[in-house]
Amino acid sequence: MRICLIGFGVVGRSFVKLLTERAPVLANEYGFAAKLVCVADSGGAAVSQRGLIGAELLAAKESDGTVGAVADHGLTGCSVEQLIADCDADVVIDATPSDLSSPGVAMGHLRAAFRTAKNAITVNKAPLATAMPALLELAAHNRVQFRYSGTVGGGTPMLALACECARGDDVVRLRGVLNGTTNYILSRMHETDIDFDSALAEAARLGYAETDPSADIDGIDAATKVVILSNLIMSRPTTIRDVDVTGIRNVSRNRIETCKSAGRVLKLVGEIGESARVGLAEVNADSPLNVPANLNALTLTLRSSGDVTLVGRGAGGIETATAILRDLLDIWQTVGAAT
Amino acid sequence: MRICLIGFGVVGRSFVKLLTERAPVLANEYGFAAKLVCVADSGGAAVSQRGLIGAELLAAKESDGTVGAVADHGLTGCSVEQLIADCDADVVIDATPSDLSSPGVAMGHLRAAFRTAKNAITVNKAPLATAMPALLELAAHNRVQFRYSGTVGGGTPMLALACECARGDDVVRLRGVLNGTTNYILSRMHETDIDFDSALAEAARLGYAETDPSADIDGIDAATKVVILSNLIMSRPTTIRDVDVTGIRNVSRNRIETCKSAGRVLKLVGEIGESARVGLAEVNADSPLNVPANLNALTLTLRSSGDVTLVGRGAGGIETATAILRDLLDIWQTVGAAT
Repeated sequence: MRICLIGFGVVGRSFVKLLTERAPVLANEYGFAAKLVCVADSGGAAVSQRGLIGAELLAAKESDGTVGAVADHGLTGCSVEQLIADCDADVVIDATPSDLSSPGVAMGHLRAAFRTAKNAITVNKAPLATAMPALLELAAHNRVQFRYSGTVGGGTPMLALACECARGDDVVRLRGVLNGTTNYILSRMHETDIDFDSALAEAARLGYAETDPSADIDGIDAATKVVILSNLIMSRPTTIRDVDVTGIRNVSRNRIETCKSAGRVLKLVGEIGESARVGLAEVNADSPLNVPANLNALTLTLRSSGDVTLVGRGAGGIETATAILRDLLDIWQTVGAAT
Repeated sequence: MRICLIGFGVVGRSFVKLLTERAPVLANEYGFAAKLVCVADSGGAAVSQRGLIGAELLAAKESDGTVGAVADHGLTGCSVEQLIADCDADVVIDATPSDLSSPGVAMGHLRAAFRTAKNAITVNKAPLATAMPALLELAAHNRVQFRYSGTVGGGTPMLALACECARGDDVVRLRGVLNGTTNYILSRMHETDIDFDSALAEAARLGYAETDPSADIDGIDAATKVVILSNLIMSRPTTIRDVDVTGIRNVSRNRIETCKSAGRVLKLVGEIGESARVGLAEVNADSPLNVPANLNALTLTLRSSGDVTLVGRGAGGIETATAILRDLLDIWQTVGAAT
């Protein structure tokens, strides 16, 4: 399969390393072989019909800060949308970071892929948050495959599990701890006597919170995951405007203490029942949603089989790279081994 | 798809009800339609090329104790293996109960299906426990599909999750609480001050333990699940003879108290690492394997993505029926909509 990879940060680089490492296993177990024909980052791009070498891409990024510096194949000053449209790829992978305040750029990547009949994988949540119903329609209209496993649960296959559950049963309700940063902050406030600001500072120090943590702590990141689950699992056309969102910014020590003394734990919970919402919820200490540290958890309530809960790390570069690889194999198995 | 269903106990009847209820959804979402061409129970069988009516099968079972009493289509005194071999089905579903002391009968059902080029689904663990590597080979040799989702986790898709994880990552270790009866007994011993015999009696009263509970409490049922996971997920040809098994029969109150005072919980854990085993293990109170009541849990340790844990009910008639339905859709999507 010929791949066009957009974004060469932690996720993009982890994916290229993973693909290189696992090439023998993938060939052996699935008969799968991949070729990187185009890789772009914010500083430039590298293009080769014969396939780019992972080690050369990583070395150029390390030494010059961009894959545009790859010998013989490097380009600078090119339009990413144009690269996507012009390249001879079967699949475009968008591994750029989610910027929920400007979804337009990543949307442009997906549109360029779809209108030139290329399958797409994204780990960028921004276009899904604002326009997932339209993107699903556009992919269907152009008869291409579209996957986004890495947007919910990182390397923990939450979407795949939910689809599998929905196949034999009705999913009547979804509840999840869908953001690791806020879960870390709330967990620390429960375990110790620190206040919100100190817990946030600790999360930032450990690399769990962004420089601007508002998308996490205001519940926006969790809400994008609710949007994705609502469209995919509940088949309800949903955008972030349909989700009632409150964050954790105003959580006081008093609130935590009240909760603790009642034997409960305060969590930021994303929920889809009658409607879709993200907000603080008190869960019992023995609830499967009471996951520690920065873990994520998703509980599906099934009509016949009751509650099913999946727990795992919700983010991370290498974790998200494994989700991209699963999506890639899935597309390859769906469209057939011809490409 | 033409279906031959063997076994019309709780699981078989739940499956027929589920298939009838979900027929419109299955037709609409997957373009899937099923026809029951042969249904057998211990008292007889009903056969019709044009398709049997679910309600008539259920009524005959209710009134006469066997589907052999269905008007016009009922038979008695027939050989189940012969029925499987002779019927015009695309898929044979074995919904007979697992009897680990005599795997031969259920083995005969699968062999009859495979040698007459029929796909098969089983929820009967017995033939898998004793001969899973041979059965996988036989299915591959006859180029038929073979599924057994309901044998591990009931309606909780543990095998599907594990396969999905294994696609993009390496599963380096598996640990699970794989038997609900023993988990119920141990959970009750932790929560209260009752002894093993009282907890077992309680489990029997609630229908969690069989009349002869030895397969559960001696760890044999958990070991069969370890066998299935080892073959499917770790790609190691394994039978129950390869699993080191100890049960929970000798757990004393003293053992429970020692464990509790150390902040830990005693669980019957099935594990696959260097080798495969089932035995008592102390887990931390906040471990994801510390699941209450008769729940099951499976933790996969992935090389890149860390620990992923799935929690849900591990058994039940209607739950297992949803697993059969997922397998059926999976086979149908694999072999194509031609049949």
